[in-house]
Amino acid sequence: MSTDLAQALDLGAIRRRVDAVLAKFLHHPPHAVPAQRGCGGELDRELAAFVLAPGKRIRPLLCVLGWYAAGGADGEEALWHTAASLEVFHAFALIHDDIMDASETRRGRLSAHRAFAARYSHRPDADAFGAHAALLLGDLALIRSDALLHGAGLSARQRDAVLPLVDTMREEVLLGQHMDLVATGRPSGDVEHALAVARYKTAKYTVERPLHVGAALAGAGPEVLALCSAYALPLGEAFQLRDDVLGTFGDPDTTGKPVLEDLRSGKATVLMAVAAQHATPDQKRTLQALVGRPDLDQEGAATVQRILRQTGALATVEEMITTRYEAALSALATDVLDPRVADALRSLAVRAVIRTA
Amino acid sequence: MSTDLAQALDLGAIRRRVDAVLAKFLHHPPHAVPAQRGCGGELDRELAAFVLAPGKRIRPLLCVLGWYAAGGADGEEALWHTAASLEVFHAFALIHDDIMDASETRRGRLSAHRAFAARYSHRPDADAFGAHAALLLGDLALIRSDALLHGAGLSARQRDAVLPLVDTMREEVLLGQHMDLVATGRPSGDVEHALAVARYKTAKYTVERPLHVGAALAGAGPEVLALCSAYALPLGEAFQLRDDVLGTFGDPDTTGKPVLEDLRSGKATVLMAVAAQHATPDQKRTLQALVGRPDLDQEGAATVQRILRQTGALATVEEMITTRYEAALSALATDVLDPRVADALRSLAVRAVIRTA
Repeated sequence: MSTDLAQALDLGAIRRRVDAVLAKFLHHPPHAVPAQRGCGGELDRELAAFVLAPGKRIRPLLCVLGWYAAGGADGEEALWHTAASLEVFHAFALIHDDIMDASETRRGRLSAHRAFAARYSHRPDADAFGAHAALLLGDLALIRSDALLHGAGLSARQRDAVLPLVDTMREEVLLGQHMDLVATGRPSGDVEHALAVARYKTAKYTVERPLHVGAALAGAGPEVLALCSAYALPLGEAFQLRDDVLGTFGDPDTTGKPVLEDLRSGKATVLMAVAAQHATPDQKRTLQALVGRPDLDQEGAATVQRILRQTGALATVEEMITTRYEAALSALATDVLDPRVADALRSLAVRAVIRTA
Repeated sequence: MSTDLAQALDLGAIRRRVDAVLAKFLHHPPHAVPAQRGCGGELDRELAAFVLAPGKRIRPLLCVLGWYAAGGADGEEALWHTAASLEVFHAFALIHDDIMDASETRRGRLSAHRAFAARYSHRPDADAFGAHAALLLGDLALIRSDALLHGAGLSARQRDAVLPLVDTMREEVLLGQHMDLVATGRPSGDVEHALAVARYKTAKYTVERPLHVGAALAGAGPEVLALCSAYALPLGEAFQLRDDVLGTFGDPDTTGKPVLEDLRSGKATVLMAVAAQHATPDQKRTLQALVGRPDLDQEGAATVQRILRQTGALATVEEMITTRYEAALSALATDVLDPRVADALRSLAVRAVIRTA
């Protein structure tokens, strides 16, 4: 383990290094088709702008922490390229997710499909065109994340360890998306289903697998991988539950996300499922009438918020967050981990769960 | 080179072997998420049904022929898995393409997005839901093609040779799609742009790169790769030009594709670009009024067909097909290739260009 571990674990420094790899790769993509006649590299420019917009880089961060958790040494290019490839993959997930959710904005800018529609507003089919161009942009992000990973300079041992994990991660987030898509618009009292979506879409995809990928890259054995899971899964669920609470009760100016979006789309959150379980018949009818209405207004949202409080759903979910947060922290209380790595993971956990945006 | 090469080159036998790999992989996908609660493996079932529906398997065939062209020996599992992964990738391309083209049918069945919309017709958002589920299905196909390739048992040497080629192939088809998307609905006289789309979407993606992948897997040097390109690029362009002619003049009962589809969407084919170049001002106005009209009827289509003949566009494109077909065949007249491999490639070329469906 590096003596400069404390420095290596500086989250800001990790982010900057990942950003540098991303910028270099996206501005000069390898194997790029030379002549994009009539399109002038539009998709490449859009992808670079999308990925390089300021972001938390949570998946690359966790990948790097997983590497150090497994005792990885300093300074391997393979680590930085692999970590960066997770961010490019994430761009794919976000761009396609925004199409499905019909989201207007992302990271304070127009979402990809809205940006294309705006740029091609002279076309009679501008909206469909925007969705289709964004579909291709997402596909390009996925393909480029592969190219970045394939060219990361992994040893044969690392490839054998990492590629199946990455494939699994991709599949998990996709099936989580599918479960989400099927459930959205049909709010039910199925807490287990809502939790399973949170597990696949967030806990595994955002936290566990990035840690695993970094750890496997450093040659982690089953003990370290299991420790990563014990930390990641409850933390990831807590993160998603916090997201759901902020999506309904947060301050849009702070979250950057309109409060009405989750409610209008009828997102099948754990919060909503718990409320549906404990609602009186009257409250249930009100929820069914309001949640999933594309024209829900502030007054309707306030009514839903009131029911989420009255049924105890908000308190229950806050308690679920706390339980999971504590489980994640207690997983770190082990001498398998260098205490400085445990500290970094603890600090990430605090920020994931105790936040307003 | 195997003494049983003639047998190894039996195209029907290759197809059956690829189909067997596909069926095994898709019915028992590795790393599959165990509990797709509430969705019951729906995406997996759809993907298996989509890929396993009868098809020409042209890309796997060419991959296997590329392998033998480079002197590959019999019976490597890596070859069959790699060849099959190209077909799974192609499912991704078709599923997303059908969303963008709003195609109703594919291979004589409902297209993926229409099939989902029909199955979920009880949802008020059935059409959007169908498009979004198909978006995810396409994503899954892409991800699974990676998993199949990553698990194909390639040696380190093979991985280094093949993965960058596959990444390039994916990027080329995507950028071809983008060029196509931008040009569609705006028919112009830009023959070069239309030819570039044909090159990226078809010549490189469907013919050249599959040959390259198979050849690289067998350790091909630059000479064999260049020979593959000399055969593939003109053949692939001829194939696409034939497709365009059939799309406008073919018998829908034979092609399985409504003649009006290309015309209604305003597909920017070479055929249309040549016509626009040679049209009188009157003919040009007629083309602009009719091509790209979503409600174009048979009478309008007949008018467009007449202009395509009168301007000489149909004859020009038929001549372009012949020139390219001959160039492809003459590339095979070399002693670099085993004559039996050259025969198989020649037989594929005939079928690609001289066809009615």
